[in-house]
Amino acid sequence: MIEKTSKQIRSEVTKEGKLLIYIESIKLPEPKEDEVLIRIEASPINPSDLGLLIGPSDVSSLSVSGDGENAVVTMDIPEGLLRMLEARIDQSLPVGNEGGGIIVAAGDQVSEALIGKTVGVAGGSMYSQYRCVKASTCFVMHEGTSPAESASCFVNPLTALGMVETMRMENHSALVHTAAASNLGQMLIKICLNEDVPLVNIVRREEHVDMLNNLGAKFVCNSSRDTFMDDLIKALIETGATIGFDATGGGKLSGQILTAMEVAANQTATEFNRYGSDKFKQVYIYGGLDRSPTTLNRSFGFSWSLGGWLLTPFIGRIGPERFEELKQKVADEIKTTFASHYTKEISLAEVLMPENINVYSKQSTGEKYLINPNK
Amino acid sequence: MIEKTSKQIRSEVTKEGKLLIYIESIKLPEPKEDEVLIRIEASPINPSDLGLLIGPSDVSSLSVSGDGENAVVTMDIPEGLLRMLEARIDQSLPVGNEGGGIIVAAGDQVSEALIGKTVGVAGGSMYSQYRCVKASTCFVMHEGTSPAESASCFVNPLTALGMVETMRMENHSALVHTAAASNLGQMLIKICLNEDVPLVNIVRREEHVDMLNNLGAKFVCNSSRDTFMDDLIKALIETGATIGFDATGGGKLSGQILTAMEVAANQTATEFNRYGSDKFKQVYIYGGLDRSPTTLNRSFGFSWSLGGWLLTPFIGRIGPERFEELKQKVADEIKTTFASHYTKEISLAEVLMPENINVYSKQSTGEKYLINPNK
Repeated sequence: MIEKTSKQIRSEVTKEGKLLIYIESIKLPEPKEDEVLIRIEASPINPSDLGLLIGPSDVSSLSVSGDGENAVVTMDIPEGLLRMLEARIDQSLPVGNEGGGIIVAAGDQVSEALIGKTVGVAGGSMYSQYRCVKASTCFVMHEGTSPAESASCFVNPLTALGMVETMRMENHSALVHTAAASNLGQMLIKICLNEDVPLVNIVRREEHVDMLNNLGAKFVCNSSRDTFMDDLIKALIETGATIGFDATGGGKLSGQILTAMEVAANQTATEFNRYGSDKFKQVYIYGGLDRSPTTLNRSFGFSWSLGGWLLTPFIGRIGPERFEELKQKVADEIKTTFASHYTKEISLAEVLMPENINVYSKQSTGEKYLINPNK
Repeated sequence: MIEKTSKQIRSEVTKEGKLLIYIESIKLPEPKEDEVLIRIEASPINPSDLGLLIGPSDVSSLSVSGDGENAVVTMDIPEGLLRMLEARIDQSLPVGNEGGGIIVAAGDQVSEALIGKTVGVAGGSMYSQYRCVKASTCFVMHEGTSPAESASCFVNPLTALGMVETMRMENHSALVHTAAASNLGQMLIKICLNEDVPLVNIVRREEHVDMLNNLGAKFVCNSSRDTFMDDLIKALIETGATIGFDATGGGKLSGQILTAMEVAANQTATEFNRYGSDKFKQVYIYGGLDRSPTTLNRSFGFSWSLGGWLLTPFIGRIGPERFEELKQKVADEIKTTFASHYTKEISLAEVLMPENINVYSKQSTGEKYLINPNK
């Protein structure tokens, strides 16, 4: 039975410097030709969603008026940061990059064959009860895969695959990854094991070292240990990794990776080069878990690059054919390589509850929430 | 008349953490086939030379034993930095990347035609009375060009040309340059005027704004002004510059350039993009005038790159044919586009005098020394 309306989470920045989160009811969308209507049953809260949902707001300033599905969450945006949000002021924006659900209606006869199928899908506004999308954008899952299992089929799997692809395209042969105990990090470990790519994992907590070792990770460095730099250098000498992907972005970590790569490269150098090793070292920042400034001591010569990495331009770079291959791989391995773990399933109304916001806004590894808009 | 010995400046790091500078007398080198012997009469002290000559030593710890050509300068290397210099410990290294001189002998009949010619040359050990090099590596100057005029024919001219070439190779259409009042900066202004490349110059002192305006520079931003960020954003909107070359490296400047590029890019954006502008922004660090850590606030989205830039890999990248064209351009325009200015000409013995070291080690814009090893 399809409802005549669809509820969805909205985020709005006011010109007075407040951020509001609330539920909006819209008319049930109708699939046009080439389109299908999906009942969304699972959508993860990824760091990339929080950028839109909460943005740079101060979570400690949170207040709520109304309750249940009528609650409105209000937070302050710290002074000086409002200028960066100018382009979204006074717009009520739907949220949610990806989700899993069941196709319940189709806009043409060809797509009708998909009705009843479980799909994963990306494209925004996924914290909605129903979403209309182009049929061709759906990851059609194999029989027996649930919407919850399909929910994280896009951002994490393709980012993890994208790291390995980028490594190869840019002529590196081994990888470094930070925040490596995340769902994404665990996928990357499995991909690298399958494809014999040496991988250096960086985590911040000792229990994550054990967890990743149990997954088969060979190199796990804990940045909280006093011996971190020595451990990292040793792993880089063994693996020869000269490209890293940093989910944290802030603080010293990116620079430490470049420094350790430089020290590792110089171990094999035969003569002193005043400009540093000529081995090219690359670190990409693909997230911002640490919002503090990035600090580089530049003790790594001149043959290096630090840059931003995003999924969308990467997909453009590999082209549609390779993209389809990667999508198929994700659908084939969604219960193994690309399996995700969540600590809690919440409804749309529960997205607005302070006790939940305080947890999911922290983006802690091992504290991942899944939204079921039809719960 | 050719002396039977050749004196040269040496720099040496001891395992006890001292850096020594002194003059060494070596046997006059003899040109082999394809080689010529040059009497060096002018060699600049560039920031890139100081990396080898003084390295990370603490100039305030300077002491001198002996005097004149027998003086030995000693400085302390700050604790913790010695590890980076391991590969050069206890090696007596000659210094000087480039110079100008007169060819006084040749190793074969073909090269004999070059005797008496003024040449510019690069290849290290130029703080020497005599240098043997491959004849083919010399920039043969036009009649009437002096060795002093030829001294800076390599590092600055090719770096300035390299910035414009890199801009084109990487699909940008306008440039940003820091420490823009330097000899190199002035060359870049002239090249960009000749070739109609919009250039945003960043300087730190008000008198440099006037100086560069007098050279014809259209956009000059003073980073010491309170209005710096606004001035820079305005210049970036007008020029559309999305690539910058930063000679300072440390502090906030590289990040400020990326931030200003992002703000400029967003002025023309039609909708809010939570990941920042998709306009790709590049800053290259090509020097280290500011040794403090590089600090990035990352308020510039994910479409950016910060990296090191060095002349040697750039020359490899453009290939020998283009390199020869650029060399010829430098020889043709050495008195105009590529003219350099020096505040003082010093002898080898004067390189060792504290009052000179205190000046040339500071790398201040407008305080550039020229060494004449045969003074």
